[in-house]
Amino acid sequence: MIYNKKVRELKPLVHCITNYVTVNDVANIILACGGSPIMADDLKEVSEITSISQALVINIGTLNQRTIPAMLQAGKTANEKGIPVILDPVGVGASTLRNETVSKLLTHLHFQVIRGNLSELSYIAGLEASTRGVDSANEVYDPIQVAQMVASQYHCVAAITGAVDIVTDGKHTTQIKNGVPQMSMITGTGCMLSGVIGAYIGAYPMDIYHAVVKAIISMGLAGEISNQKNGHLGTGSLHIGIIDAMSLINDELLEKGGKFNEIN
Amino acid sequence: MIYNKKVRELKPLVHCITNYVTVNDVANIILACGGSPIMADDLKEVSEITSISQALVINIGTLNQRTIPAMLQAGKTANEKGIPVILDPVGVGASTLRNETVSKLLTHLHFQVIRGNLSELSYIAGLEASTRGVDSANEVYDPIQVAQMVASQYHCVAAITGAVDIVTDGKHTTQIKNGVPQMSMITGTGCMLSGVIGAYIGAYPMDIYHAVVKAIISMGLAGEISNQKNGHLGTGSLHIGIIDAMSLINDELLEKGGKFNEIN
Amino acid sequence: MIYNKKVRELKPLVHCITNYVTVNDVANIILACGGSPIMADDLKEVSEITSISQALVINIGTLNQRTIPAMLQAGKTANEKGIPVILDPVGVGASTLRNETVSKLLTHLHFQVIRGNLSELSYIAGLEASTRGVDSANEVYDPIQVAQMVASQYHCVAAITGAVDIVTDGKHTTQIKNGVPQMSMITGTGCMLSGVIGAYIGAYPMDIYHAVVKAIISMGLAGEISNQKNGHLGTGSLHIGIIDAMSLINDELLEKGGKFNEIN
Repeated sequence: MIYNKKVRELKPLVHCITNYVTVNDVANIILACGGSPIMADDLKEVSEITSISQALVINIGTLNQRTIPAMLQAGKTANEKGIPVILDPVGVGASTLRNETVSKLLTHLHFQVIRGNLSELSYIAGLEASTRGVDSANEVYDPIQVAQMVASQYHCVAAITGAVDIVTDGKHTTQIKNGVPQMSMITGTGCMLSGVIGAYIGAYPMDIYHAVVKAIISMGLAGEISNQKNGHLGTGSLHIGIIDAMSLINDELLEKGGKFNEIN
Repeated sequence: MIYNKKVRELKPLVHCITNYVTVNDVANIILACGGSPIMADDLKEVSEITSISQALVINIGTLNQRTIPAMLQAGKTANEKGIPVILDPVGVGASTLRNETVSKLLTHLHFQVIRGNLSELSYIAGLEASTRGVDSANEVYDPIQVAQMVASQYHCVAAITGAVDIVTDGKHTTQIKNGVPQMSMITGTGCMLSGVIGAYIGAYPMDIYHAVVKAIISMGLAGEISNQKNGHLGTGSLHIGIIDAMSLINDELLEKGGKFNEIN
Repeated sequence: MIYNKKVRELKPLVHCITNYVTVNDVANIILACGGSPIMADDLKEVSEITSISQALVINIGTLNQRTIPAMLQAGKTANEKGIPVILDPVGVGASTLRNETVSKLLTHLHFQVIRGNLSELSYIAGLEASTRGVDSANEVYDPIQVAQMVASQYHCVAAITGAVDIVTDGKHTTQIKNGVPQMSMITGTGCMLSGVIGAYIGAYPMDIYHAVVKAIISMGLAGEISNQKNGHLGTGSLHIGIIDAMSLINDELLEKGGKFNEIN
């Protein structure tokens, strides 16, 4: 079993090389769920920062030619030291730079977790995807099949988040129905989730699959709680309420509120 | 007529090359008003990202030598493809780098909209402006005249925001009295407005002038609503309330709350 | 005496070269306490921006090879013009790049204020520090001694913030007990404080020591007020409430709420 309490006790340090759009929310939600964030993206320091961390999050949302080598370097260190790494391939499919970077990252690094929306993971699975900016516009493929393709091709836990979330390690697959559609009205709920996954797998490196499932449930639940409480106020309050809810989540709430089922 | 409903239906993709200070708010307010933001600033991908967008926002708030060529490249693509471009010349007048960059942008690109405060647009109009950092300290010139000078020199819609906002295409001029002074206590209300303008002109590329007017009314109205509701709580809540209000704005509210008049 | 009223009247321009994680909060809290923020980090413009400012904040939270020379250049200009400079050595001790950069900054520049947590200032004092990411994990040394060592080595006001805050100019030392532990659940309260210090010393360049004391009291008090009002709602609301409280703070509140004593 995966416990939020343990995340709060261990306070895993999560090294994030992430975009500057949502970085503050990522840091705050990692703190809110029990982890400790550290953001560092210079080639000259990422290896040292990764080395003292319990997880590494690579998010390509605002990748650039300065940070791409830092992503590769940090990932290499994480792989060597057995520190779990998450890839959040924001907007892959939307530009050659994103496509080539993801391809390079997947060639040189092993990711324990790849998390994105359906069009991003369809692209990674080698399917023809039509990304519309950073939001998924692709409902062509079956998310379960796409996630399983990614998991088996890259020997990782693959997670597709959307109306229904899918997590699979290629053998087991879980469907999660927490969350509310209003979350898509806030930028960065995906990035935040990747940070939360970092904290959970940092605390549970021996059970990545279940740690990812629990992290996704907690994010969805935070969205539900915030939407119920703040949704009518507007998206600014919904946004703040998600961080509020995450900071108050505990194992009892997760137990009661989790809506998921293993489908194979 | 310009309708917020249409912005929400079309969900225009707005490519922003913008500063890292207010980028999260810009993304969230674009979502709140009905658009879809995408932030990308690497020279190697901006052309592709602009190509799939309905508007481009260039904001020089934290310009640097890596992003300036990306601004030029993205703008060039937008001009070639007929995608409307907004310039937000944050802090022009405060440094040679800002002055030279704006000069380069205005020489090589055609902007459909230039929006700033009075001292920024005075500088662009060729008047001697005294910028005090990124806040306007210049009350020397008449904003109507300055806006008209910029509009006719650069064949664009010029908008000066301040106590009273002015929008002109050189022929028609509208004065807008929405908004509250408290908005200046929050960083980035100008940047946010430029993002909202991006969404509106992305939805209405054939009527840029009226789209800018409506975007400015909506931002001012969001400020008024938030100030009435949250102003007494402090500037943190005022900030969140602006995004809240923008997410709840509709054409009925805009119709009832708009305070503007065509002055010629 | 140091008055918040004077900060609000003078509205000192505070040039920040700071990390992209918390930059929005830093800008908003500088506005909230009465200052005016300007963020600029390109080597080509920092001297001009510093020249028009009343204080310079150098925060190494997400330092990189592009911004390090800009920090040095801006600091040099500030020193030449007698503009006070604050160093916030975020995470020093955690990587060679941070250590070498801080060493370079301390060699080439004179800082009027150095503010950090106990492990950061222990490192600067030349003690063996164990930094755990950007959060202090070092309770080995006595903060009063460490602050006094830094103050006398670098001829500056040294401030260590933690459960109890210490400010010293090497001769006088003040202990401040405002603030609540919940503030550590929000990223960037330290960065925000450095921004607030910038505003206060920008208004009171002739009495840096007391200006730093008052700035720290105001930040702690804002945390207390927010925690009492919003703490039960979660860390998102606590965060917003700190900015709210700072924007409403005045000299009467500071007078009544300040918990400090000169210890020598």
